[in-house]
Amino acid sequence: MLKRYERLAEQLSELVKRGDLPPGARLPSVRMACKAWGVSPATVFRAYYLLESRGILRARPRAGYYVLPMTGEIPRRRPEVSLGTDPKTVKISDLVFEVLKTIKQVETVPLGSAFLSPALLPLVRVRKSCATGNRSTHLASVVDSLPPGHEGLRQLISLRYLMAGMTVHVDEIIITSGALEALTLSAQLLTAPGDVIAIEKPTFYAALQAIERLRLNVVEIPVDPVEGHDLAALARALEDHRVRACWFMTSFHNPTGVTLGDLKKQALVELLAKHDVPLIEDDVYSELHFGAEPVRPAKFFDQKGLVIHCGSFAKCLAPGYRIGWAAAGRFAGEMERAKWMTTLSASIPAQRAIADYLQHGGYDRFLQKLRRELVLQQSQMLSAIGRSFPANTVATKPDGGYFTWVSLPDHVDSIQFFLAALNSGISVAPGPIFSADGSFRQRVRLNYGYPWSARLDEAVATLGTLCADESRCGAKLAGPAQPA
Amino acid sequence: MLKRYERLAEQLSELVKRGDLPPGARLPSVRMACKAWGVSPATVFRAYYLLESRGILRARPRAGYYVLPMTGEIPRRRPEVSLGTDPKTVKISDLVFEVLKTIKQVETVPLGSAFLSPALLPLVRVRKSCATGNRSTHLASVVDSLPPGHEGLRQLISLRYLMAGMTVHVDEIIITSGALEALTLSAQLLTAPGDVIAIEKPTFYAALQAIERLRLNVVEIPVDPVEGHDLAALARALEDHRVRACWFMTSFHNPTGVTLGDLKKQALVELLAKHDVPLIEDDVYSELHFGAEPVRPAKFFDQKGLVIHCGSFAKCLAPGYRIGWAAAGRFAGEMERAKWMTTLSASIPAQRAIADYLQHGGYDRFLQKLRRELVLQQSQMLSAIGRSFPANTVATKPDGGYFTWVSLPDHVDSIQFFLAALNSGISVAPGPIFSADGSFRQRVRLNYGYPWSARLDEAVATLGTLCADESRCGAKLAGPAQPA
Repeated sequence: MLKRYERLAEQLSELVKRGDLPPGARLPSVRMACKAWGVSPATVFRAYYLLESRGILRARPRAGYYVLPMTGEIPRRRPEVSLGTDPKTVKISDLVFEVLKTIKQVETVPLGSAFLSPALLPLVRVRKSCATGNRSTHLASVVDSLPPGHEGLRQLISLRYLMAGMTVHVDEIIITSGALEALTLSAQLLTAPGDVIAIEKPTFYAALQAIERLRLNVVEIPVDPVEGHDLAALARALEDHRVRACWFMTSFHNPTGVTLGDLKKQALVELLAKHDVPLIEDDVYSELHFGAEPVRPAKFFDQKGLVIHCGSFAKCLAPGYRIGWAAAGRFAGEMERAKWMTTLSASIPAQRAIADYLQHGGYDRFLQKLRRELVLQQSQMLSAIGRSFPANTVATKPDGGYFTWVSLPDHVDSIQFFLAALNSGISVAPGPIFSADGSFRQRVRLNYGYPWSARLDEAVATLGTLCADESRCGAKLAGPAQPA
Repeated sequence: MLKRYERLAEQLSELVKRGDLPPGARLPSVRMACKAWGVSPATVFRAYYLLESRGILRARPRAGYYVLPMTGEIPRRRPEVSLGTDPKTVKISDLVFEVLKTIKQVETVPLGSAFLSPALLPLVRVRKSCATGNRSTHLASVVDSLPPGHEGLRQLISLRYLMAGMTVHVDEIIITSGALEALTLSAQLLTAPGDVIAIEKPTFYAALQAIERLRLNVVEIPVDPVEGHDLAALARALEDHRVRACWFMTSFHNPTGVTLGDLKKQALVELLAKHDVPLIEDDVYSELHFGAEPVRPAKFFDQKGLVIHCGSFAKCLAPGYRIGWAAAGRFAGEMERAKWMTTLSASIPAQRAIADYLQHGGYDRFLQKLRRELVLQQSQMLSAIGRSFPANTVATKPDGGYFTWVSLPDHVDSIQFFLAALNSGISVAPGPIFSADGSFRQRVRLNYGYPWSARLDEAVATLGTLCADESRCGAKLAGPAQPA
């Protein structure tokens, strides 16, 4: 039987092997360890000595015991693709998470990512704002970010609306943990299980997940990559069903990139107003317009407070800060209550950082530069696709944002293509993740939000070669995908 | 008809009056304003001049136009109590929000608050950690906080479990936006609408809201302020109903303050395990134990991975940072997916700040000091209650946390008492907000998480006087409260 100190050493060694105590981690002090584990100092010392003698720990004088890097195999904590070997049985919901996981794999070429390259973002400047914005030591600073959120930030957002020619009062703005929370809270407060909600097809996958969670029924409104949302289909749906809300992305739509013109946006708002149906407007890419003028949201045409306009700083400034908002119209009060009861407030340091940056960071100057870079990257991506992909490939050329929606040749199955690309170290976002029934098996979404490089050029060339190779990504290989 | 520049001036003036453009706000530059509003520089200049002449704006050379403080009435943006005049028709759900609003009123004595005094927290030190923890400029820092969350922080949390004698692997830990998100995500993923969940009575009001939102049915398990949870009632409920999950606070229960002993916690875990029912364990006050030894969570006794242990740094370190976690046992994978699909990640600066603080900030030293202060404040509060309240008042004396659950004399109605107290500038948390049916009309929860002061002393004296005054808070005044 093991002695007490040996048992303790075994336990600790196991934690190191699993990576729970990673190289560089400091072990509890002997005093703390005695208290925590109810053992004598001698036991702790002997356990630590034993681990030191095995090359697992190292004592640093007056600083404590630290975990040494392991020799031999180093435990790696990184996501692995785990779709199984048979692509015929891939579930869409699993596929979504596999695509998401690739975001965290730095070694993968991130053409399937939903994010902008961090290299394009003013991370250092925002961090500076995080420091200066959080300097206040006033005690009230602990509660001033509670719902509806930090007032200074809400005023600055209101001011940005004003600059865009819109009057959106501070009282109407609720700060959220990213736009995603604004969107899901909106859907939650406008519906009950079994209700019907109108969504886009193709649509952003998180919308599908939210709808599943809320147990809603959907009517899917087709979105054409060129024409945009099919308002005639929406009109029919509004006549035929008791639609409780409509969840649309009206500018630089994800994944197609399409933008509704002013007239069509106005028609959309009026159509919904006629039926008294609220619009949840996902407008997270609106700052990334390529034209000289900003693109108006549908909210601009809202007369009845029926549009909940959801925006974010996560797509165009500071992804990880998770600061978004809802300009919630007549639903602002309910939204504020929902926020209190789900995640309380958005994180204070992040709210204050963004507020400071908006005041002093030069946001508009940064955005102008960013837009120029995205225009350039889009043309580089599209011309690389033109060079490398089979002739019957069609890629959209949006007026903003950083996605192109690519229609692949008939023989290609995009799930096969996704798996083959990942095998070559490249992520793409396969079409089927953008609908509940696994449609769009000949489409992929590619991200041009990364500065062009030889690596990207090569990756697109590889994708082109793969795409032409029916034996590796042919539709004949694949059975039907399983809906989520 | 107004001229163009006059119209613009009117619009801006309206925004200033409403407080949307507060004193000190900078107006758009003339160049930006022209672009945004589609007017000529002359129009903008004339509008700004006009507002300057009216004492609304002030030009600062080379810096732009700023809003001046208003003379006369200053618009105040602060929450008002809006329960209406007839306390007979008070809805519990409205009452909850009225209590929450008082948190933001700095002029109110916060005995009804759910938070610790910020004066007791190492805000400056955490802010320092926010700066140092976010210094890294590695581009991957943008994605390293995506679900399940910042790995360094998860390792440090795992290490804290280890110090408490528990092995909780890093893979099991999901960082969330406060414990509230961990709790509501847990409830969401364990249930479907119409399912039965076991909760406490009295319970934390956010649990009631979450359950309403998820459309669950509840069995309420009585929690006695001295004996704790009625496990016999739970056993019967498990026999009689198909209970899908159990949502309990097993240590320093909010609002009663009661803690289940080790034996009872073990019995709880075994009882639930027998029925294969998961426990959502809300353990946000566990660091605030008054005894020399930490209190073990029910999770300690979990053999089957059925306990989702939800913790937080919001109650005992950095409220506004909104960093909590779930140690989700066998549900970790589902939890991670749910997190991706609701708010994506918790805010990066906050995750990194807490991680840095845990490594370098001296958390344990701080907690020891905090516990001593809370012990002292508890005794000051209880002796003040003893001095001021009618003789038949009973207040609990918990072994940790910062709430006492006060049983008022028979003649008192706690909603009347809440309204009367608020009238005197004091908030209390009336009993009815802790149950769905408005029970506990003779109870209030008082917060002793604030350093004792003459102001607190006076406030408790005022409450005592009010409490004795049947004409101001008598039960006879009140009708039945309306359930939420």
